[in-house]
Amino acid sequence: MKTKAERPVITVIGSGMMGSAVTWPAADNGCDIRLVGSVLDDAIIEHARATGEHLTLKRRIRNPERYSYYRFDELDAALDGADLTVCGVSSFGLDWYLDSVIPRLPDGVPVLSITKGMIHTGAGNLISYPERMESRAAEAGKNIDFMAVGGPCTSYELADLDPSCVTFCGRRPELLRAVREWFETPYYHVSLSTDVRGVECAVALKNAYALGISLAIGMSYRREGREFEHYNSQAALFGQAVREMKLLLRICGGGDDCLALGAGDLYVTVFGGRTRRLGILLGTGLGYAEARARLAGVTLESTAIAVRTAEAAEALEAAGTVRREDLPMLHHIARLLGGETGIEVPWDSFETENFG
Amino acid sequence: MKTKAERPVITVIGSGMMGSAVTWPAADNGCDIRLVGSVLDDAIIEHARATGEHLTLKRRIRNPERYSYYRFDELDAALDGADLTVCGVSSFGLDWYLDSVIPRLPDGVPVLSITKGMIHTGAGNLISYPERMESRAAEAGKNIDFMAVGGPCTSYELADLDPSCVTFCGRRPELLRAVREWFETPYYHVSLSTDVRGVECAVALKNAYALGISLAIGMSYRREGREFEHYNSQAALFGQAVREMKLLLRICGGGDDCLALGAGDLYVTVFGGRTRRLGILLGTGLGYAEARARLAGVTLESTAIAVRTAEAAEALEAAGTVRREDLPMLHHIARLLGGETGIEVPWDSFETENFG
Repeated sequence: MKTKAERPVITVIGSGMMGSAVTWPAADNGCDIRLVGSVLDDAIIEHARATGEHLTLKRRIRNPERYSYYRFDELDAALDGADLTVCGVSSFGLDWYLDSVIPRLPDGVPVLSITKGMIHTGAGNLISYPERMESRAAEAGKNIDFMAVGGPCTSYELADLDPSCVTFCGRRPELLRAVREWFETPYYHVSLSTDVRGVECAVALKNAYALGISLAIGMSYRREGREFEHYNSQAALFGQAVREMKLLLRICGGGDDCLALGAGDLYVTVFGGRTRRLGILLGTGLGYAEARARLAGVTLESTAIAVRTAEAAEALEAAGTVRREDLPMLHHIARLLGGETGIEVPWDSFETENFG
Repeated sequence: MKTKAERPVITVIGSGMMGSAVTWPAADNGCDIRLVGSVLDDAIIEHARATGEHLTLKRRIRNPERYSYYRFDELDAALDGADLTVCGVSSFGLDWYLDSVIPRLPDGVPVLSITKGMIHTGAGNLISYPERMESRAAEAGKNIDFMAVGGPCTSYELADLDPSCVTFCGRRPELLRAVREWFETPYYHVSLSTDVRGVECAVALKNAYALGISLAIGMSYRREGREFEHYNSQAALFGQAVREMKLLLRICGGGDDCLALGAGDLYVTVFGGRTRRLGILLGTGLGYAEARARLAGVTLESTAIAVRTAEAAEALEAAGTVRREDLPMLHHIARLLGGETGIEVPWDSFETENFG
C-alpha cells in the first residue's frame, strides 16, 4: 500500500453525503479523490462539476484541487489506477452495489464501506454487509478485502471538521493500519478492529434504538402540549437500549468493546435528524403510515434497518436463542413500525431484579 | 414492613430538590411524608408550610394532604413512628449526616439514600456511601439497613411526572421489594439490585464523565463563535466515557449490568443543568477558577465527585491496578478541574486497536 505521501487515489462509488464527507480527511492528507455518482447521483456530480459545491451535503468541497467527478457511466475511468475504493451507497443501494459494482471492481484493490447494516439470512442469523460483499466478490472471482467504517459520525459534522472518533473494521490489521494513515487527521480519529461482526452489529442496532429513544421526546411534546423535552424518560430508554444492545451484540458474535462504540453511535443518532424526527412523530401518537407521510421525500434508512433488526430478533426468539422478555424495547419499536398505535412504552418490563 | 395500603410513614431528612421529589410517587401511593429540613433548609420548610410550594424545586407540593414539615430541631418528632427514613442531603452534607443524623436514627428503621457518591479510602480503594453509612451506624450501636437510589432521574422531571427508571440497591432483596412497593408508580419504575458497589460507582462516575462530554459543547461554541452544538465530538466523548466507566466499574467490584444504568445516567446528566454548564465553560477555554466564578452560587456537587473520582484513579494507578493510558478522558477532566488551561482533548489516546 502507498503511504499518504505517495498520494493514493481513492475512488468513491456513491457520492451521497457520507460517501463524500468521509473523503474530506483523506483529501487533507493529500489523497486524490474521484467521486463517482451512483445511478441516482447524476445531479450531485453535475452540481459539483459546475459549482464546486456538494448538492446534498450543502457544503463547498474542501480541497477542490484534489477532486474529480464521474457519472456512473464513467466508472471504468474512475477505477483506473485506484488504490482504494469506497462503497458510498446507502443500505437501500446494497443490492445494486452487489450486482452492478462488485463485478466491475479491480481485483486486489481493497474496499472501505460506509454502508451500514446487517443482513438477516434466516433463522435469526445476522451477517454484516462486509461479509456479504466479500462472498459476492468471491462469486465474481475477485480477491478483494472489504473494510467498513463504524462509530458515531454524521456527515454534516464531519464536513464541518467537528472532531470525530470512528472505527475501521476488517480482517487484516496491516491493511487497516495502512488505510488509517490516509484518513487520520486532527479531526478524524480512527480506531481499528478485526471484530467486523461486532462493529457492524453495533452500527445497525443503533438505528433501531435511536428511534426508540426519540419516542420519549414525542411523548413529552404530547404531554406538555408544546415542543418541550424531558430527559428522564429519554435516559430510561437510553439505558434500556444499551442493555438490549449488549445482549444482541453477544448473540451476533460481537466482542465486548463494541458496546462503547454502539453507545456513542446511539447518542449521535438521537440528535441525527431523520431517525429522531420519525421517533418524535410516533411518540406523539401518530401511526407509522401517517408519520411516514409527514416525512415524505426523506430517506429513512434507519427505519429499514430497524425493521430488519426486529425481524431478526423475532427469528432469534423462534430459534430459542433469546427470550422475548429480554428485548421489550426492540419489540415495542417493531410494533410501532408495524403500524400499531395506542400502545404504551412497556416501562414495567424494563425493571430488573439483580440479586446475583 | 407495612404494605402501601397501611400508609407507611416516610421521614425525609434533607428537604432539597431530590429528597423532596422522590416522595412524589410515595405520596401518590398513600404514604405519609414528613419533610425535615437539614440545618441549611429552614427557608424551604418555612416556605412549604406557608405556601404549599417547594422553594427550590419551584413546584407545588403534589398531594399536600400527605405532607407535614419539620425544621431540623424538630427531628425527633418527625422520626417518631417512621417506617422508613430517606437521606436527602447532598454529598456535601455527608459528614453532617454521618455525625449529626445517624446517631439519632431509630434502631431497626431502614434508610433509603439519594445521596450520590463514592468515598476514596486510600490506595485507590473506593467504597459507596451506603457502605460508609452502615459502618457509621454500627459504630453508633444501631442496626439499620441502608439502601440507595441510582439511575437516571433528575428531580424537576420526576416532579413533573416524566417516566423515570431508577434502581434501588441494598443488601436484602425482601426489604428492597417491600420498599419498591411504596414508590413504584406508572411514572416511577424501580429496578432492584444487591450490587450496591456497582450501582453507586456508576452513579458517581457519571458526574465526572458528563462534565467531560459537555466540554465538546463549549468547544463547538468557541469554534463556531455562537451557541451551536455539534454532536460527533459529544458522541466520541460519550463512547470513551462508556469505555472508561466499564473499566472503573470492574475495578470497583461492580457487576456488568451497571454499565447500562451508568450510560442512561450519563445521558441525563449531560442535559442536567449545572454539570453541563461548567463543562461548557471549560470547553470554551475558561480556566476552572473563572468558570466557577461565573457559576457563583451554584452548588457543584458533580465537581466534587469528579475530583474525588479522579483522585481515586490516580491512587489506582499508583497501586498498579489500572494503567494511566486506560483512562485518558478522566485524566483530562482532572487536569481541567485542577486549573490547567490550553490543553486539548486527547483524542488520539482514545484510539484503540482491537485485533483480538
